[in-house]
Parts: sequence; C-alpha cells; structure tokens
Amino acid sequence: MAEIPKMQWAQVIEKTGGPVEYKQIPVQQPGPDEVLVNIKFSGVCHTDLHAVNGDWPLPTKLPLVGGHEGAGVVVAKGDLACDIEIGDYAGVKWINGSCLACDFCQQSDEPLCSKALLSGYTVDGSFQQYCIAKAAHVARIPKECDLAAISPVLCAGITVYKGLKESGVRPGQTVAIVGAGGGLGSLAQQYAKAMGLRVIAIDTGDDKKKMSMEQLGASHFVDFAKSQNVVKDVQAATPDGLGPHAVILVAVNEKPFQQAAEYVRPRGTVICIGLPAGAYLKAPVFESVIKMITIKGSYVGNRKDSSEAIEFFRRGLIKAPFKVVGLSELQSVYDLMHKGQIAGRYVLDTSK
Amino acid sequence: MAEIPKMQWAQVIEKTGGPVEYKQIPVQQPGPDEVLVNIKFSGVCHTDLHAVNGDWPLPTKLPLVGGHEGAGVVVAKGDLACDIEIGDYAGVKWINGSCLACDFCQQSDEPLCSKALLSGYTVDGSFQQYCIAKAAHVARIPKECDLAAISPVLCAGITVYKGLKESGVRPGQTVAIVGAGGGLGSLAQQYAKAMGLRVIAIDTGDDKKKMSMEQLGASHFVDFAKSQNVVKDVQAATPDGLGPHAVILVAVNEKPFQQAAEYVRPRGTVICIGLPAGAYLKAPVFESVIKMITIKGSYVGNRKDSSEAIEFFRRGLIKAPFKVVGLSELQSVYDLMHKGQIAGRYVLDTSK
Amino acid sequence: MAEIPKMQWAQVIEKTGGPVEYKQIPVQQPGPDEVLVNIKFSGVCHTDLHAVNGDWPLPTKLPLVGGHEGAGVVVAKGDLACDIEIGDYAGVKWINGSCLACDFCQQSDEPLCSKALLSGYTVDGSFQQYCIAKAAHVARIPKECDLAAISPVLCAGITVYKGLKESGVRPGQTVAIVGAGGGLGSLAQQYAKAMGLRVIAIDTGDDKKKMSMEQLGASHFVDFAKSQNVVKDVQAATPDGLGPHAVILVAVNEKPFQQAAEYVRPRGTVICIGLPAGAYLKAPVFESVIKMITIKGSYVGNRKDSSEAIEFFRRGLIKAPFKVVGLSELQSVYDLMHKGQIAGRYVLDTSK
Amino acid sequence: MAEIPKMQWAQVIEKTGGPVEYKQIPVQQPGPDEVLVNIKFSGVCHTDLHAVNGDWPLPTKLPLVGGHEGAGVVVAKGDLACDIEIGDYAGVKWINGSCLACDFCQQSDEPLCSKALLSGYTVDGSFQQYCIAKAAHVARIPKECDLAAISPVLCAGITVYKGLKESGVRPGQTVAIVGAGGGLGSLAQQYAKAMGLRVIAIDTGDDKKKMSMEQLGASHFVDFAKSQNVVKDVQAATPDGLGPHAVILVAVNEKPFQQAAEYVRPRGTVICIGLPAGAYLKAPVFESVIKMITIKGSYVGNRKDSSEAIEFFRRGLIKAPFKVVGLSELQSVYDLMHKGQIAGRYVLDTSK
Repeated sequence: MAEIPKMQWAQVIEKTGGPVEYKQIPVQQPGPDEVLVNIKFSGVCHTDLHAVNGDWPLPTKLPLVGGHEGAGVVVAKGDLACDIEIGDYAGVKWINGSCLACDFCQQSDEPLCSKALLSGYTVDGSFQQYCIAKAAHVARIPKECDLAAISPVLCAGITVYKGLKESGVRPGQTVAIVGAGGGLGSLAQQYAKAMGLRVIAIDTGDDKKKMSMEQLGASHFVDFAKSQNVVKDVQAATPDGLGPHAVILVAVNEKPFQQAAEYVRPRGTVICIGLPAGAYLKAPVFESVIKMITIKGSYVGNRKDSSEAIEFFRRGLIKAPFKVVGLSELQSVYDLMHKGQIAGRYVLDTSK
Repeated sequence: MAEIPKMQWAQVIEKTGGPVEYKQIPVQQPGPDEVLVNIKFSGVCHTDLHAVNGDWPLPTKLPLVGGHEGAGVVVAKGDLACDIEIGDYAGVKWINGSCLACDFCQQSDEPLCSKALLSGYTVDGSFQQYCIAKAAHVARIPKECDLAAISPVLCAGITVYKGLKESGVRPGQTVAIVGAGGGLGSLAQQYAKAMGLRVIAIDTGDDKKKMSMEQLGASHFVDFAKSQNVVKDVQAATPDGLGPHAVILVAVNEKPFQQAAEYVRPRGTVICIGLPAGAYLKAPVFESVIKMITIKGSYVGNRKDSSEAIEFFRRGLIKAPFKVVGLSELQSVYDLMHKGQIAGRYVLDTSK
Repeated sequence: MAEIPKMQWAQVIEKTGGPVEYKQIPVQQPGPDEVLVNIKFSGVCHTDLHAVNGDWPLPTKLPLVGGHEGAGVVVAKGDLACDIEIGDYAGVKWINGSCLACDFCQQSDEPLCSKALLSGYTVDGSFQQYCIAKAAHVARIPKECDLAAISPVLCAGITVYKGLKESGVRPGQTVAIVGAGGGLGSLAQQYAKAMGLRVIAIDTGDDKKKMSMEQLGASHFVDFAKSQNVVKDVQAATPDGLGPHAVILVAVNEKPFQQAAEYVRPRGTVICIGLPAGAYLKAPVFESVIKMITIKGSYVGNRKDSSEAIEFFRRGLIKAPFKVVGLSELQSVYDLMHKGQIAGRYVLDTSK
Repeated sequence: MAEIPKMQWAQVIEKTGGPVEYKQIPVQQPGPDEVLVNIKFSGVCHTDLHAVNGDWPLPTKLPLVGGHEGAGVVVAKGDLACDIEIGDYAGVKWINGSCLACDFCQQSDEPLCSKALLSGYTVDGSFQQYCIAKAAHVARIPKECDLAAISPVLCAGITVYKGLKESGVRPGQTVAIVGAGGGLGSLAQQYAKAMGLRVIAIDTGDDKKKMSMEQLGASHFVDFAKSQNVVKDVQAATPDGLGPHAVILVAVNEKPFQQAAEYVRPRGTVICIGLPAGAYLKAPVFESVIKMITIKGSYVGNRKDSSEAIEFFRRGLIKAPFKVVGLSELQSVYDLMHKGQIAGRYVLDTSK
C-alpha cells in the first residue's frame, strides 16, 4: 500500500464564475463513517460546468473542488466504515452522503434526503487525487472493472438506468429515448437493450441514426428534424401502432417534453431526466386523463440503482465512449463544453 | 316477474343542443351478450349536459337517450350472458361495453378500449325505463342496496375511488383532495377515509369546511380563498410538514392543477380527474425531477374498480346526498345545472 | 379462401384410458362469440397423455378430441367476434374460453375463472383439422410466424414466461431454473435471457450442460447429480454468494421443491410450475420467516402473457426444437411418451 | 435535563438458562453513531424467554441484558447521530442497528442485514435504565404518546403491521387472522381495521369471540375448536364465498399453517409470522399451482414500517392491553410465561 501524501494536486475554484486553478492542497482525513478514495479517473459532466458558473438556485461550497464521477481506490477509512476495505475500488458519485435516517433515506430514496451531500457541489468532489466520501454511499466497484471506462457510468449511467427503472417498462415492451444520440441517450439505449426492451431512438442526423441502429441496438430511429410528423412516426414504430410504453427524455430543450405525452401509449409513462433551463412540463388535461398518461420526474439513482448499473457495466453490456486527458487540463475541457464542441465524455487522469 | 312492455317512457334529444323530449319509444331486445335492465333510478351527471350541448370533440349518437348512472333490475338477457340472472340488480355505467379482446381489455383497462361503448353518449343510456347494456360490463348491485342511493356511486363514486387507487397511497398516508366540497370531492373524502387515509380537504367556504371536518372525516381543511399561502398551509397540515403523499384533483378550474405539484411530497403523486375545459397540466421540469414528482391522469374505473366501489357503499361507508325527481323533469334539472344552481346530486325516478 | 368441409380428420378417445382413434368427424360451426380455426399444426404435451389416462381428479369430456397447442388459420367467426378476421393466424391454447365477467376475469386472471373451458380436456381441442375456440381467447399469431415452430410456444412457452413474470425478478437479477434441460426448462432459459436475466441452469448430464451454457445462454450450470452440495453450489453461482433472486421449478419430482427454499436469496421467490403427482411444497417456518421467502404457484398465462410470449418468439428470441409427424401418428407419440423416450417436442401436421 | 448516573439497575443473565438477576451495572456511553436512551418502560415478549432459555440455534451475548420493547428518552448522543435530539422520545426495537450499507440495507430490508444487532440478544437490551442503540435505528416516538402504552407496539405491533403490508391486501379486501385472540392477533385485528380491511378472526373461545367482534372490529369469528369444517366456514365468511384475500398466521402451532392454503382465495397470500418450534409450511403442489397461491414469511418491520406502525398508535387507532410491574419483578413475569398464565402484555417500569 502506497503511503498517503500530505499534499495533493487538485482543481479548485475560488469564486463562482471560475476559473479553475490547478494547484496543491492538503489531503483530508476521513471521519469515523467516511473513506478516503485515491481518485484515479474522473469523468467531467455538464453539471460541473453549471457549478462553476453558478447556474442553479442552490449555492455551491467555496472554494470548491468539483467532480462527481470519480473512480479510484480506498486508501483509508473510519472506524465505522463497514462492507468496504482498504484496497477496494470505489466510486465517488453525485450523492456523496445522506443522513440515512430520515423518511426518504428509510425508504431507499437517499437522493431526496434534505441533508444529502453533493460531490463537487456542497462538498469537495473528485477533481483531486484524494477525495472524502461517506463509506455507506461510495459505490462498490468490482476489481475487474477499468476505472477510466467506468467513471462516466457513475453519474450518466446510473441516472439513465434509474429513469428506465422508474418508467416501469417490462422486458419486451418499447421505450422511446429522446436525445438518443447524446451522452445520456447512448447509455440509455444500451441499458434499455440489456434490460430486454425494444428501443425507438429519437434524435437527428445520419451519424446518430447509424450509431443507434448499428451499434446500440435500437429497432427504429426517428429523425425529429426530418420527420413530417414525429407523433405519427413514433407510434408507427411500435408493432401495433399505439405508441411506446414509456418515453425517456434526456434532451435539453423544452419541445420534446410536450410532444412525448402525445405519442406515448395510453397508460404509458413519460420520464423526465434532462433539465433544460427554465423548462416546463405541459400536457392537456383532457387527453392526459382519457389516456391515463403518467408524467414523472426521475433524479439520480440511489445506492442500489448504482450497484445494479455498475453490474451491467461489469458484465460488458455497457460501453461509453470517452477520451482521457490529464486533471491539469480541466479548464480546456470546460472551454470546449462552453463552446458546445464536446463529443463523447472526457475523463480526467489525476496522475497528470 | 312483470311483463316487459313494447313501449316505454324516455328522455330523447333529436339534435345536438337539445332540448330533451319526454316521450314514448320502443323497448329494445338484448343481443346474445347483452342484458335488458329495467332502470328504476338514474343519477344526472354534468357529462350528460355536455352531451346535450355537444361540448366535446367526440360526436354523440343521435337521436340520443342520455344517462350513465342507471340502477335497476335485469328483466331479459341473451344466451351468452353469464354470471347474471333475471331479477338481479344491475347498474348501467359510462362504459356500457367494450371489446374484451384488445390489448387494453386484456389488461383490465376496459375504459381505454378503442371500441368502448359509452352509455348516454355513443349508445342510448339510462334516461329511459328499459336500457340495453353488455352483460359482462353491467355493474352487479347487491340486493340489500337502495337503488336510488347507489345511482350516483355508479359514475362519481367509481371515478374518485379509481383515482385514489391510481395514486398509490397506502393506509395511514395523507391525501389532499382539491374541490373537496363538491359532488366528486365529498365522495372522494368518504372513500379516502374508508381506505384508511388521512384527508386534507381543499375548497372554500365555511359550509364546506364544516361538512368536511364534521361529517366526512377530513383531518384538515384549507380554504384556498382565505389562505395567504396555500402551498405552505397544505404542507403544514401533514405531521412532518413535507406535504401530502398524493393530491386528487376534482376541481374544475386550471390553477389547482399547477399548484398541486408544488405542495405534494417528494415522490408524491398528483392525480387529475376533473376536466376543466381547455386546461393544461403544467409543472417546472427542474423541481419535478429533483423531487421525483408523478403527475397522472385517471379516467373512469374498470369493472373491478366498480365492484369494489359498490362494495364500500354496500357496507354503509359511503353516503352521497341526493334529491329524487321524476324522469319527466329532466329538462328542469338541466336548467338548474346550466345556471350553476345545483347542490348535491339529482336522481331521476323513471316511474314518474 | 378454401371452402370449409363438412367432415374432417381427428384423433378421438371414446373412453378414459384410450386409445386414440384416427377418424372422420363433423366440422362444428362457431357460435356468435367463437371462431373456427383450421388447425395446421399442433404440439403434443404431457397433459394430453394425462387426459387420455384420466390421471387427474377433474374428469374430461367424452368422447374427447385432445390437444391444446394448435396453430392455424381462422376460417369462420361469429357475429360478436371482434379484433380478429377470417384469414388471420390464430392459436388454440389450454384456456379455450372463460366467462370474462367473474371476479378473476375482471382482473385478467382468466386461468382462474371457474367456468374456464380447457382445450382438449373439457372441450374438444386441436387434434383435429377444424377446432372451435372463443374469439376473445384465441391467440393472435402474427403472419410472419411459422405455424409449426410456434405451436409448442402456445402452452410450454407461455407457461414458463408467466412463471418468470410472476417471480418478480428484474433485468440484471439472477434466476435459477430447476429442470433446465427439459422442454419447459430450455424454453425458460431462453425467455429468461430475453428478459435480461442471468440464468443458473440446474439439471444433470453433460449434454444438458453443454446445451444450457453454449446455446441457451446460461451463465452457470449446476449438475444436481454430481454436486456434493447443491445449495452451496447454487449460491456460489451468484456474484455475492447470497443465492438467486428467484427459482423456477419445472422439474417433475418433489425433492427440488424443498431444496429451493434453502438456496434462494433472502427476500427471494420460489415459483412452482411443474406438477409432480402428489407432491408437496415443504419449507421450515423459522428459516422462511427470518429470510422472508416467498413460495408461489404459477399456472398458465392469461391472454396478455400469451401475446407477450408470442411476441418474443416473433422477434426470433425463442427457439424450441421439435419434430413434425402426421396427425395420424398421435398414438405412436403417446407410446414414446409413455416409455419416457421423448426428446424435444412432437408437433402434429394435421394434413397427414 | 437530569444528570446521567454512572450506575443503574438492570436485569442480567449470566449464563443461558437463567435466572435473571436484578442488580446494578455501569451505564455505557454512546459511540459516534449511537444514542443513550433512558428507558422508562419495556414490554416483555416471549422472545425474551427464548433468549434466556437458549431455545434458538443462534447463541446470545453473555452476560446479557434482555428486552427489545423499550420506550424512553434520549439522554446522550454521538457526533454523527442525526435527526434526533436529546430529550426526544425514542424506542429500542429488536433491530438495534444494522450496517446500512449492504445489499439488504440499501433496499430498506435492514432486518435481513447479516450484521444486524439484536436488542436483548446479541447486544444488551431494554431491561435496564439506560440502553445504547444506533441513532439511525432507534424508533422516533412522538411526544404525545404514552411510553408505557406504546412499548408493546415496538415489537408486536410493528411485526403484525409489517405482515399485513407484506400480504399486499388492499382496503376493502378481507384478511383472516389465525390466532386472532392472542397478543399479536389482537393487535393485528386493530391494524387491519385501521387499514380499511375486513377481518375474519380465527381462534377459539367465547371471550375471544366477544373481544374480536365487539371491541376489535372483526366482521366474523370462526372458532376452530367448534367448527365442523374450518375451511368451509372461513370461505363462507367472505361475501362471494371464495375465501379471504390473505391469511395472517400468528398462531403458535403447526396445523393452521397447512390449513390456510386450503381456504385462502385463488391468487391469495398466506403470511407466516408466528414461529412454532420445528414447524413446517406444507402445501400440495397441484392445488397451489392451479390456484396460484402465495406463501410468504414475514419477519420484523424495517424502520419505515416501524414509524408507520407508531403513527397508527399515535392517532389512537391501536390499543394493546397491558399490566405494569416493576423492572425488579421480571423473573416472576417469566415464571408466569413459563406456566402459560400470561393474559395480555406485561410492561416493566424501570424506576421500580
């Protein structure tokens, strides 16, 4: 076991609006119910940029170390930490910890805990070499997993898997994924297939069509930009023409949120995951009642969802394309993100 | 067994817009899968007035005999009619029949059947002395039930009971009922209580407050007209201040549809039943996702919901206030309805 | 459309104990809610032999035409038959009809209807060229399906698919299938895989091991005859050693029924499908309570289960090995069955 | 706030087989995730006697302070204890703590945690004045509750409430309770009523009949000793004669475990709670499959079940008869128990 250093490299923002500064800061020691994780790789998520920019109503901790897709190795743990050992692989997720005692935690809804700690937002996250997390919450990662490859699963993968579970669709049924060609969408297609679902991919562009149909296993692709009538085309892509049993919304604009209620099957479910700024769900009362439609928000997964999402990855059923760059290069990744020039996920190597 | 006459009294509209005409028409004979019900009493529902007026996109049969809350006695049946005998009490509901073979019927969602027959709308209904209905769909009414008293249960009662079931609330949890003092709302409060739920009644006026708290068993009443902050007051009416587990919307205007998503508990469900003309469900995406809110439309009950709703009535747990007038007086009931001067349910006695 | 003949070939037993007699009998005409199906192929199931032999407490119709896995074409239908047309492919299943009105039918549990008609048992079945069935119950078979290949799915396939649904296992979880190498078991393995489940196959013999692991997609095989400790070996085949989430029992002897409760995971479910004569479920109260085990009987599927099971077949995910012989050779198939010399399913061609 | 003493009175057993010795022992200090509860009252359960006697395969801690129905006041807490304050009322339950991190804890099945601490069995329990418990597990008791009256709810009440939840019965359905007149049974009847269920009480004797029908709200009583045919009588007590939707077994002998599967409704559920020594569940495979019966073990409740069961008590819907004696008199309570002379629950006052 390598010794734990006193100081480490980290990316820190001092005030909202950034920039991030790559510098050395002290390594923390875990409390009795915590572990210290030597982060090896960390994915970069749009949420990290929102945190830098202060886009959301909830204020961040300052100074702040961002990051919530950290994969690494447990190097120290408190006396109360159980079910995890030094040397184990572990993942630092968006939910860094929760009270484990409130009404929501008692029902396995830790993400709804009012005291939940958010990695890289209300507590320091994974853009550093050594990160603290609550032992009961840190994701258990099997030893055969590649730590770089699994890092995007720790947020994006878990989130779409959760949405698919919340939709209530059963194996053999059909799910439409809106924004199917993006980062969340391409993971959603893979999870859906692994769960025995038929997938209608909704997005635009021939590249995304090709990827969806040939690599990700979609049975149909509807190009919303080319379609004369998205509602009809989506319904026609189901064997009986009645529409998909569920719709997963990972798009980042508002229109699809209002269209989904029209093409979903009677008794079907529309799951909202994406968070377009200032957007509203909107559906006509009459049709929603007569068709008995359900519209449901789905946030990040709980610990069990996380472990299930990781297990699908371990079995080789999920592959997220990613590029590795050094932790020191985070600002340039943010710059690309800001310009909308990101394709696939960036993963930071904390040793560089 | 009294003989079945050739001719009978009925209330008929010849063209959309009315008026209804009280006259004699022939008695029909049941087909092989049908029964003929000698209607004794029939409730009058707002939907009947919508049918007369042609308010909805779906056209009615013409000429039309309205009515879909008919309680009576089976006097004839086809060869295929099973599980029902001549002399049995039976109820003619909104869903007069359905195909019993499509994907929705196979899953006990007969109200979603695209071939469903609607009493008093696409087929003749209960504003006549002898009414045809599909044997498999007609409600079975136990002999100890009063036929006048049960008639409003056959539509309003079943509908609110269905909404409560669809909400997924469990005994001991809290449900808010919006429009609690109206016809649907006062039935909803009674069903909720019989199902072991705590009720927050939301409506306006001291009479409705008194009725809710003293007769119908609500634990709290929030007067939306007097409250400074409906959201806070509803949440404060739950033991932990986190809001009700479900909200049942039977109000007939749009605002409550948008407010409910704010005060419902995280993971809670908002059930839409009322059909305000042209109204929209609307909820902010961000809060709906973070709180994992469900918004769900609930239409009328299926046959099993109907039989359960009737059983609660049979056990004496449900009482709907009503006034009996003769079938011949239907137009004057419509006139009162039109002026908004109806209090409680009107029930027509077909013998007068 | 070919004309319907007056007489047809059929296999008839005159009295319990057999034998079957291949002879010409009249073609029946469908009642108003029935269809007449020109059977092209019919699978032969062990239940058919039980019917001949009178093995079960429930008496059969006599004289009797057996068979309940009949696949063919609708050639006539009654006036009330809806959602099906002349020329459509249709399947005659074990449940030939039910009342569609009782408490169980109202809840989509048609197999529990006390008035259910059983094909080839209480009504004539599919071992004839033209068979009557209730229009609402006959399986809808898509035109792209091979009628010989689908016939065993109509009983065996639906039954194991139903059992898997009843178990409540979710995609990614593990199911143990006991009797995995037999007719039911090999279908169960394929359905489980298509539903996104991990499979532990339990049976004996290297052939069954090879088939399970190489063709049917099982992740583990436990040979109950070779294993020193079946309980330990089954639990060891799950990633965390806690045992499978569900066990599907399609074996035909009693011992596995009692062993399953020992290796199933806490909170797990044991599903009984197979019907060993005179067998008992038996489990210690103490361990069952402490581990919160569920033991559940699963009978044949309802109409919706049937249509879902057929859809998996249509998509090419299910393949049942079968041999085709002429309808005239049924007795020789029974003889092989009686001697236990059957491997795979026999399917009768009614044209021979 | 009164000062916490160094020494306290407790009932201690030094070796398996007893007796309990009333003596002074040191007061412990809570760890970082624990609270110290000043026990005011503690119920005495049969399990406590089993612990003294070493009746079960699992060995107890020694020396041991028994008790797992302790109600009191939080007087000290560790740094990590959240959602609970000094001065709050709290209950020490059978599940004293669990890892909160394993697969079962992640799914709110803390009672199935392999590291669960059992009060009065593997850790010291509530037969002392100051008891340690995990902060996240200790029951939150509202201030308006009487601490003596609530103590039996903390084990018996929670357990039967859990069983009723696990049965899946819905308001308006019928549940049979076997052993309805005993301690668990009389609580089960009250919870069932509060949950909107119809109750068939099964037990023997006119006193139990009177109590069930007049005080506890059962709709029927079947005296198993007087009945000529228990199966028929139980089924006849349901409106349609098809039997209860669920059966709750709290009896302590084996026969009812085997009879329940006969009278439960098709698709019904038999819940096992009672733990007759060496007893077996036993049901015929054929009938269980054809009727699709579920048999399920139900252990103690999780934290959420506990809080719900307490809330029913707080609302005044649950009343368990009990007698208060001093903590010093525990041995005499055990003596009565041993002789089978206990009627109702004994509650110990720790100040005497």
